[in-house]
Amino acid sequence: MSLIVHKYGGTSMGSVERIQNVARRVAKWHAAGHQVVVVPSAMSGETNRLLGLAKEISPQPDPRELDMLAATGEQASSALLAMALMSQGVAARSYTGWQVPVRTDSSFTKARIKSIDDARIRGDLDAGRVVIVTGFQGIDEEGNITTLGRGGSDTSAVAVAAAMKAHECLIFTDVDGVYTTDPRVVPEARRMTVVSFEEMMEMASLGSKVLQIRSVEFAGKYHVPVRVLSSLTDPLMPLEDEMASGTLITFEEDQKMEAAVVSGIAFSRDEAKVTLLAVPDTPGVAYSILGPVAAANIDVDMILQNQSVHGTTDFSFTVNRNDFSRTLDLLNNQIGPAVGAAQIVADDKVCKVSIVGIGMRSHVGVASLMFRTLSEEGINIQMISTSEIKTSVIINDKYMELAVRALHKAFGLDQDGSQQGRP
Amino acid sequence: MSLIVHKYGGTSMGSVERIQNVARRVAKWHAAGHQVVVVPSAMSGETNRLLGLAKEISPQPDPRELDMLAATGEQASSALLAMALMSQGVAARSYTGWQVPVRTDSSFTKARIKSIDDARIRGDLDAGRVVIVTGFQGIDEEGNITTLGRGGSDTSAVAVAAAMKAHECLIFTDVDGVYTTDPRVVPEARRMTVVSFEEMMEMASLGSKVLQIRSVEFAGKYHVPVRVLSSLTDPLMPLEDEMASGTLITFEEDQKMEAAVVSGIAFSRDEAKVTLLAVPDTPGVAYSILGPVAAANIDVDMILQNQSVHGTTDFSFTVNRNDFSRTLDLLNNQIGPAVGAAQIVADDKVCKVSIVGIGMRSHVGVASLMFRTLSEEGINIQMISTSEIKTSVIINDKYMELAVRALHKAFGLDQDGSQQGRP
Repeated sequence: MSLIVHKYGGTSMGSVERIQNVARRVAKWHAAGHQVVVVPSAMSGETNRLLGLAKEISPQPDPRELDMLAATGEQASSALLAMALMSQGVAARSYTGWQVPVRTDSSFTKARIKSIDDARIRGDLDAGRVVIVTGFQGIDEEGNITTLGRGGSDTSAVAVAAAMKAHECLIFTDVDGVYTTDPRVVPEARRMTVVSFEEMMEMASLGSKVLQIRSVEFAGKYHVPVRVLSSLTDPLMPLEDEMASGTLITFEEDQKMEAAVVSGIAFSRDEAKVTLLAVPDTPGVAYSILGPVAAANIDVDMILQNQSVHGTTDFSFTVNRNDFSRTLDLLNNQIGPAVGAAQIVADDKVCKVSIVGIGMRSHVGVASLMFRTLSEEGINIQMISTSEIKTSVIINDKYMELAVRALHKAFGLDQDGSQQGRP
Repeated sequence: MSLIVHKYGGTSMGSVERIQNVARRVAKWHAAGHQVVVVPSAMSGETNRLLGLAKEISPQPDPRELDMLAATGEQASSALLAMALMSQGVAARSYTGWQVPVRTDSSFTKARIKSIDDARIRGDLDAGRVVIVTGFQGIDEEGNITTLGRGGSDTSAVAVAAAMKAHECLIFTDVDGVYTTDPRVVPEARRMTVVSFEEMMEMASLGSKVLQIRSVEFAGKYHVPVRVLSSLTDPLMPLEDEMASGTLITFEEDQKMEAAVVSGIAFSRDEAKVTLLAVPDTPGVAYSILGPVAAANIDVDMILQNQSVHGTTDFSFTVNRNDFSRTLDLLNNQIGPAVGAAQIVADDKVCKVSIVGIGMRSHVGVASLMFRTLSEEGINIQMISTSEIKTSVIINDKYMELAVRALHKAFGLDQDGSQQGRP
C-alpha cells in the first residue's frame, strides 16, 4: 500500500461526465489498496469566467479580492469530485486550502507555500477515505485566502506529495507526457518516457506549459517523483499500464541518457524586453535598477549589461509580458530618472527559445550549432543567456515557430535515434 | 453616524452592471458618513447552477460537500462587490463566513448561527472601510463550511446587525416591500409601510417569500429594526427617501394598527401531509412518532391528533414537501411498524393558506369568516391550526390561488380603507 497523490487539470474536471471519470480512476487506485490524495483544478473555463467578471468590474482588480474570487473555482470542483466518489461508494472528503491548512505568504495572486499541515488529511486517509484538497490556494498569516497563480494546482499537488512523503505524484493532464517540444509547433515532436529533474526544471522555466515551474522546484527540493500522464485514457486501464505511461521526472541520471545531447526545445512568447541606454556605470547601478523592480513583485528573467563605454553602459532585462506596462511605468517615472538613463527602449514583441539537455555538460559546440542554425534562417539574436544545461536566446517573436522547428531538426530530435538511450 | 447593514439578494447582484449599482448605493451611504456592512447573496442563478451540477453527479449529494460547493457563490459575489466598491474609490474588504467567523452548528445545508465575532469587521469599519460579509454561510466547530439553507443570507444580515447592534438592517430585494399577499396571485395586493414583528413572523413562517423565517426570528430576539426595500430604484436616490421606502418591521405596536383586523394572507405550496391511521392511543405515542422525525432533522409544521375511538387514534402532521419522501420512508420502514399504525396515508398535493393580523387578538369571528369564505368557494378544509394572531388551513393545492383571492377580498385587504391606520 502506497500513498499516491493525483492531480487533475481543468480539462480533466471540465464536465460532470469527466468528473465522474476522474472518480472512477481514483476509485480504481483506492480499490487496489492505495491511499489517495487528489488535487483538482477548477473546471475548465471557470477561472477565466471568474477573472472575466473581475475585469469587467475593474481594469485592475484588488489582488486580495481576486484571490477570494478565483479560489472558489477549485472549492467547487473539489466538492463535486467528493460527491462523485461517494456516489460510486468510495468514502471521500474535500478540504479547501485554509482547512488543511496550506500556509502561504501574502503575495496575493502569486503566493508561495510555506508549510502544509498533514494531520487532518492523514486522519482521513487512515479512516479509509480518499482526501481531496483544493489546488491553487492557501491561507496567509492574517487568515486571508491566497492563490498560487496560474497552474498553481500542480504546485499544490507536489507540495502535498512532499509534505506527506508520497510514493509518487501523478499529474493527469490533457497531454500524454513531456515532449521534445510543443507538438502543435513541431509535428515531429516526440514524447520522452523519462526526463531528468534538471531538464524538466529548465523546460518548465523556459515556457513549456506542461508543468508549472514551482511544482518542479518543489519536486526537486523534496525529491518527489512526478509523473505527467493523460487523463483521457480509459479510467479503468490496468494500474501497471498506467504507471508505465506518461513521462517520469526522475532524480537519477541514467547513464543511457548521455546519448542525447539536447533533450528538448522550449519556448515562450510571454516575454518583453526593456533597455536603459547610457546608464552611468557606477557601483550599485544594477541594484538601483532591479531593486525597485523586485520590490514591485515583478520577476526579472534575463539580465544583460554591456561593456562600459565612456563611463556609461546599456542595461537590458526581460520580464513577463503581463508585467510589461507596469515595468515600463516604473522605468519611465522612477528608475530611469533616478539612475540617469539617457533613454528607455522597450519591446514586447520578443520571444525566448531555448535548447535544453543534461548532455550539454559533456559536449562542446552545442551553443554554436544553435547560433549557426538561427543564422541560416536569417533570425537575429537579441540577447543570449546560458546555464550548464541550456542556452536561451531572445528573438523577434514572429520567428518563434521557425526557430523552434529549425532547432528541433538540427539537434536530431525528430529522429528516433536521438532518444534511443531513453527507456 | 450610524452603523447600517445592507443585504442584497441574488437578483440585485445578478450581473456586473447590477453589482456596480449596488456599489453606487453602498458608496452613497458610506459618503453620508455611515458605517456600512454589506451582506450579498450569490449572483442570481449561481446557486441553482451549482446545485444542478451536484444533482447531476449524485441524486443525493453529501450535505457537507453540498455546503462546500454552494458557499462558493456568495464568496465570489462578495469579492466582486469589494472590487466594484474599490473601483469607485471606496475602501472595502470582503470576508467569508469562516473568516469573520460566523460560527454555526453542524447541520449541513440548514445550519443555525451560534455566534458572530465582530472584532475583524469592527476593525475595518473603524479604518473607514466598507465591510462585505458573505451571506448564507458559516463554519462549524470542526472547521467545516456550513450553509444556512435557502434565503440564509437574510439571516446572515440580521445576525450581523444584531451582533453589531446596527441602527437598522436594510434588506434590498426585487420587491419594494411586504404586501398584504403575493401580488402575482392577487393583483389588488397592497404594500404595507409598517408591519409588526409578530405579523411578519407569521407571514414569513407561513410561506411569504419576502424574508426567511429565521432572519425574522433573529430580528425579534435581538430587536433589530429591519426594512425590506427595493434594489431596483435609482441607487443615488436621496437617503431620506430611501429610509422612508419599503416596509419597516417594527417592535412597537402602534395604536393605529388596531384598525386592521387581518393584515395579510400568507400561503405556501411547499407542504405535504402524512397520516398514521388507527394508532394505539397510549401515552408517549406522539413522541414515538415525532421523535424519530426530529432526529432525522425534518421540520414538522402542523400536528393533529383526533379524539380516540375504540382505543386508537389517527395522527396527522405536515412537513416541507422536500422532506416528503424521507418522511414517508421513515414512517413506512420504522415509525409505522414501531407504533403499530394500521395504515399510512400521505398527500403531497396540499397547500397552506393563512390569515395573519395582530388585530385578531381583540376581534372575534375572524376564523369563522375565513371558514365561511372557503366554504362558499366549495373548498374543503383538511387541517386547521391557529395561534393568537393567525389561522391556517391545509387545503388541496389546486385551490390555493382561489382561496387566497377570496380571503383577500373577504377581509377587505384590496380596499385602501383596511390599511388607512398605517402611516
